[in-house]
Amino acid sequence: MSKPLALHPDRLFSSDPVQRDIARTLYATIADAPIISPHGHTDPRWFADDRPWTDATALLLQPDHYIFRMLYSQGVPLDALAIPRRDGDPATDHRAAWRTFAEHYHLFRGTPSRLWLDHVFAEVFGFDEALDGTTADLYFDRIGDQLASEAFRPRALFDRFHIDFLATTEGAHDDLDAHRRIRASGWNGRVVTTYRPDSVIDVEHEQFGDAMRRFAELTGEDIYHWNGYLAAHRTRRAAFRAAGATATDHGHPTVATANLSATDAEALFGRIVGGTWSVADAELFRAQMLTEMARMSLEDGMAMQIHPGSYRNHNAGLFASHGRDKGADIPTRTEFVRSLKPMLDFVGNSDELTIILFTLDESVYARELAPLAGHYPCLRLGPAWWFHDSPEGMRRFREMTTETAGFYNTVGFNDDTRAFLSIPARHDVARRVDCAFLAKLVAEHRLADWEAADLAQELTSGLVSRAYRL
Amino acid sequence: MSKPLALHPDRLFSSDPVQRDIARTLYATIADAPIISPHGHTDPRWFADDRPWTDATALLLQPDHYIFRMLYSQGVPLDALAIPRRDGDPATDHRAAWRTFAEHYHLFRGTPSRLWLDHVFAEVFGFDEALDGTTADLYFDRIGDQLASEAFRPRALFDRFHIDFLATTEGAHDDLDAHRRIRASGWNGRVVTTYRPDSVIDVEHEQFGDAMRRFAELTGEDIYHWNGYLAAHRTRRAAFRAAGATATDHGHPTVATANLSATDAEALFGRIVGGTWSVADAELFRAQMLTEMARMSLEDGMAMQIHPGSYRNHNAGLFASHGRDKGADIPTRTEFVRSLKPMLDFVGNSDELTIILFTLDESVYARELAPLAGHYPCLRLGPAWWFHDSPEGMRRFREMTTETAGFYNTVGFNDDTRAFLSIPARHDVARRVDCAFLAKLVAEHRLADWEAADLAQELTSGLVSRAYRL
Amino acid sequence: MSKPLALHPDRLFSSDPVQRDIARTLYATIADAPIISPHGHTDPRWFADDRPWTDATALLLQPDHYIFRMLYSQGVPLDALAIPRRDGDPATDHRAAWRTFAEHYHLFRGTPSRLWLDHVFAEVFGFDEALDGTTADLYFDRIGDQLASEAFRPRALFDRFHIDFLATTEGAHDDLDAHRRIRASGWNGRVVTTYRPDSVIDVEHEQFGDAMRRFAELTGEDIYHWNGYLAAHRTRRAAFRAAGATATDHGHPTVATANLSATDAEALFGRIVGGTWSVADAELFRAQMLTEMARMSLEDGMAMQIHPGSYRNHNAGLFASHGRDKGADIPTRTEFVRSLKPMLDFVGNSDELTIILFTLDESVYARELAPLAGHYPCLRLGPAWWFHDSPEGMRRFREMTTETAGFYNTVGFNDDTRAFLSIPARHDVARRVDCAFLAKLVAEHRLADWEAADLAQELTSGLVSRAYRL
Repeated sequence: MSKPLALHPDRLFSSDPVQRDIARTLYATIADAPIISPHGHTDPRWFADDRPWTDATALLLQPDHYIFRMLYSQGVPLDALAIPRRDGDPATDHRAAWRTFAEHYHLFRGTPSRLWLDHVFAEVFGFDEALDGTTADLYFDRIGDQLASEAFRPRALFDRFHIDFLATTEGAHDDLDAHRRIRASGWNGRVVTTYRPDSVIDVEHEQFGDAMRRFAELTGEDIYHWNGYLAAHRTRRAAFRAAGATATDHGHPTVATANLSATDAEALFGRIVGGTWSVADAELFRAQMLTEMARMSLEDGMAMQIHPGSYRNHNAGLFASHGRDKGADIPTRTEFVRSLKPMLDFVGNSDELTIILFTLDESVYARELAPLAGHYPCLRLGPAWWFHDSPEGMRRFREMTTETAGFYNTVGFNDDTRAFLSIPARHDVARRVDCAFLAKLVAEHRLADWEAADLAQELTSGLVSRAYRL
Repeated sequence: MSKPLALHPDRLFSSDPVQRDIARTLYATIADAPIISPHGHTDPRWFADDRPWTDATALLLQPDHYIFRMLYSQGVPLDALAIPRRDGDPATDHRAAWRTFAEHYHLFRGTPSRLWLDHVFAEVFGFDEALDGTTADLYFDRIGDQLASEAFRPRALFDRFHIDFLATTEGAHDDLDAHRRIRASGWNGRVVTTYRPDSVIDVEHEQFGDAMRRFAELTGEDIYHWNGYLAAHRTRRAAFRAAGATATDHGHPTVATANLSATDAEALFGRIVGGTWSVADAELFRAQMLTEMARMSLEDGMAMQIHPGSYRNHNAGLFASHGRDKGADIPTRTEFVRSLKPMLDFVGNSDELTIILFTLDESVYARELAPLAGHYPCLRLGPAWWFHDSPEGMRRFREMTTETAGFYNTVGFNDDTRAFLSIPARHDVARRVDCAFLAKLVAEHRLADWEAADLAQELTSGLVSRAYRL
Repeated sequence: MSKPLALHPDRLFSSDPVQRDIARTLYATIADAPIISPHGHTDPRWFADDRPWTDATALLLQPDHYIFRMLYSQGVPLDALAIPRRDGDPATDHRAAWRTFAEHYHLFRGTPSRLWLDHVFAEVFGFDEALDGTTADLYFDRIGDQLASEAFRPRALFDRFHIDFLATTEGAHDDLDAHRRIRASGWNGRVVTTYRPDSVIDVEHEQFGDAMRRFAELTGEDIYHWNGYLAAHRTRRAAFRAAGATATDHGHPTVATANLSATDAEALFGRIVGGTWSVADAELFRAQMLTEMARMSLEDGMAMQIHPGSYRNHNAGLFASHGRDKGADIPTRTEFVRSLKPMLDFVGNSDELTIILFTLDESVYARELAPLAGHYPCLRLGPAWWFHDSPEGMRRFREMTTETAGFYNTVGFNDDTRAFLSIPARHDVARRVDCAFLAKLVAEHRLADWEAADLAQELTSGLVSRAYRL
């Protein structure tokens, strides 16, 4: 006997009737606003090719490390979920993998994945029974059938989701072919790229050597000399700008910055490409390159996003067997105040430049990030990120940043996802949590109702449009 | 004129009627469930001997550093509370000490000690007047009278409290005599031990020399050589298993782990027992031994608890006069991500092993612990510990771990107490706070009511039974 | 069309009717209690001279870095706000600066500055229209008119605000002339000083050289030798005591303490005044001086306040152009457990001494500060400070300290402000937030109503009077 699935219209609002009613009113004004997604990881080939997805496992399970990490943590082998290994896919049947997922769906109680998935199941696929072992096949079949239809092609869903703007993320060594094909196709969906040069900046990145060779090919620059290397970045940034990019993105282990003399920078670069670098050199080079990227952003106007503090591929055995992005990235403590100072001493007082800071370390929200963003003209705070992109995480973000940085030094919501179908769900959760937060301020007479209404618009569209210069 | 004492049936539930009613319903299903106490510090001799306790001060005040530290912080000398010194008990009359405590009872307003004590006073001893200076003698007399009765012997209270399982904690050098006598007595109460080898692992522990000598005597092994030392651990673990142990416990200053080669480990051990160790060696040896303990847990199936991050005996003067466990242990910042990696690289992907992590540093809940436990099959999160075993502390634990680790990577409640009479009070507070948390999720439509009912059972009995392999 | 301005009588109370009604009742008992302000930064010359303030910009905008940092963070140049540069005031007209501020007033939504300013506008100046671009001139004119009247002179406002006690803060090199004139005037307002010797202790302070010369002149001591230097502190502490001081204050980058031998301390001092110091020496000297100050507090009975962890003057460019206190001080992570141990080993067990700890790093509230203050007799916790002196910040302070330290190891509220007119607003916010916190405890049956009433009095007057020995 399966359980019903129904999305409650008041979900994520306070159960206090005063707050709930205010939240409802605010939410009604933004519930259907178009989606602006300035940072994420969807695959641009979906929109270039517009081919149908094959089945529920391929679409919803295999690419989503939020999901399979949880099952893995409870002893479910990745093979049983049909998660690809480095040496190829396991033999697991996709239907069997889906059943295993369905039988463990209770593990997600209390998690945002559960909220997003139920939203996808109910709103996108029309289910009214909850997923569990008894409904696994029903889900697998009906999702498969729908995916085969025209209405579930990527571009059709893009339109159905009311997406106004969607940024993907490509490495500096990407040829941007998919984006070129999107534009050449005449389709009017606005899908753009983002410049993410980590693999040609981080000498400890496992793709560094290959990425650098490709970087050389694509630019024709002498990238193994400092000036050629910088010129290659400028060349590629221009190509990304031409493919619609309005932002860069930097995923460093720390947020260390440096501002070396030209001579010292060149010598450091020599050690990096010469293979004589130390671990400290690798860190210093990443640090120097953040400042170089800031300098280039002053030139070309791209907003600069910094996503620091993830210990990538923490599980050595799993990395060996399955590679990266398998749910084994773990946040670490991150220091911003001393780390950012070299870059801020250089560009901090400019309001021509926007640097958007993210963190996986919530202890810096009130202590470091809000005071920094509440002072430096160039700084803005990105929304609650990754593990913290959740109702409690977003609430803590607002509670710990608003009183010092205000709302206007934040940039609205990022879905930051590979899971295309979850985009409306994620924006909906964010809008609801923001409305609940504003409703509390109004109910406690800390904000007027008309101000909350104004802020609901800002948090949905105004701030993101200005920060990412859309 | 004394004040009334009455435990409100809705205590610790939200005052919002929607949430309160859901919480009431959930709580009713678990309020009377038997107590499972898999980690604590009661004295097994109480249950072996079943002798009456003498008076309120000896039972409730002298052993409870949660209480006397607070009075000490406000200028009450420990002598006035009859707290033993290293060189013997102060001359203070137990009744006078109780009066001093009673006159300062207001200091506990807003603390969990207050909640637990009032529960003990009302439920165990039947008081309906609050403790203060005017009722101090009444309390002392009536508690003394009741303790003299058969119904207040340790075993009678154990039954009255509906305790199904109670683990104590003994050092590796303990002869387990009390546990042997409990089993030999034919009493059917399930009181077991836990293997806590800190005093033979931590060369900086003040009991290390004596504990090692006793460790040698009890095992007959050549414990001053590496292989004999490891064999001695195996011998004692088997003895603890025979005394019912299902878990080990490790109270290190940090959670550093190491996985040295056999040669390096042996050389390190040589410095430890040879007295030529450095502070770094002491830390590295503790680190290596966590991995050795994990290896042995893979062999014998005991769950492994790690309680890191307490700066023990911070007050030098008080340690000199009064010794350890006098309320002067202070939490410190604790790093898990890099620290655990050597051990996790070795055992992290096993689901044959359960490692339960505790912390006194709440900043790691969302940043480090929930992501680690939400990935590694061997890891589980212990409940909010020590200073955080409180309504707000438990709420923060759930808010900061659930969205990433879910409920199923946690292990239910630990009372972790020396205060036997407070065990029902502590479990009651935990159950109420969990029901209040679940009620909020239901009231905000983040969880279905039937799921919350299911989780209330899991948090009370299911998770603890599985994690500790009962 | 301007918007109405009205302070709601239930502001900052929960919207839950049960909690709100309890909060109202509690608040009614302390709403009009006299203000005790034991730590702040108002200018004693205001009360010595009792001259009128000139206009809204000079009174409310120019001295308040809480305000202009936020506008600066959004690209408003400090010149446009008439903020003084090192080389003199910008040419900006005060009325134009006020207009710029008014047009950006929405930036403060959700911040405590907004709460304080609206309180000042409504309660002190009688406005019933909100500040924005359309009312900027009305505000500037009416505030200017009122400031010119007798009723708005500093002493008249001091009486109107029901201030019982107001401490200012002066450097060790201050001649205390303003305080002497206040006392000589026969005015009965109780305005006292506080001994803040940072500029003669911190060799990295930009005023160190000048301050030391002045310190020598004022004391007549041979301050360039260790014993003379210590004697000079004793001389000045006595002078400050004579000017009403009951406390000292120490604003160090960290809370490091040391307890060197006399020989080592003398040698260290020699390097400090001899100009041969290292950065480590500067830190060690600050550390040693905290212990020296504790020793002197044991002698003269002054409470000792420590305000650590601010990275002062983080913005190099702005410091060069505008100097200190321009909104560019950023909090940093702060460690207390190991740092305080040398001092606590010396004075920690004394209850003759009160050391009040503040922090900008909320992660230490539950982990370090509450356990320390809940044990050591000399320690008390100062209220939520600076960036955390806000509704959410004060709530977090109570939630994270009360369960371990109780209420009685805290010291009531500090307004800590340069903005004299905001003092009633700040105390009102603190009282409301405390009542809301107490009301929640009562509503959840964690505290009796009569206890909450008692605590409301303690938090308003009892604790502060005892901690600061008024």
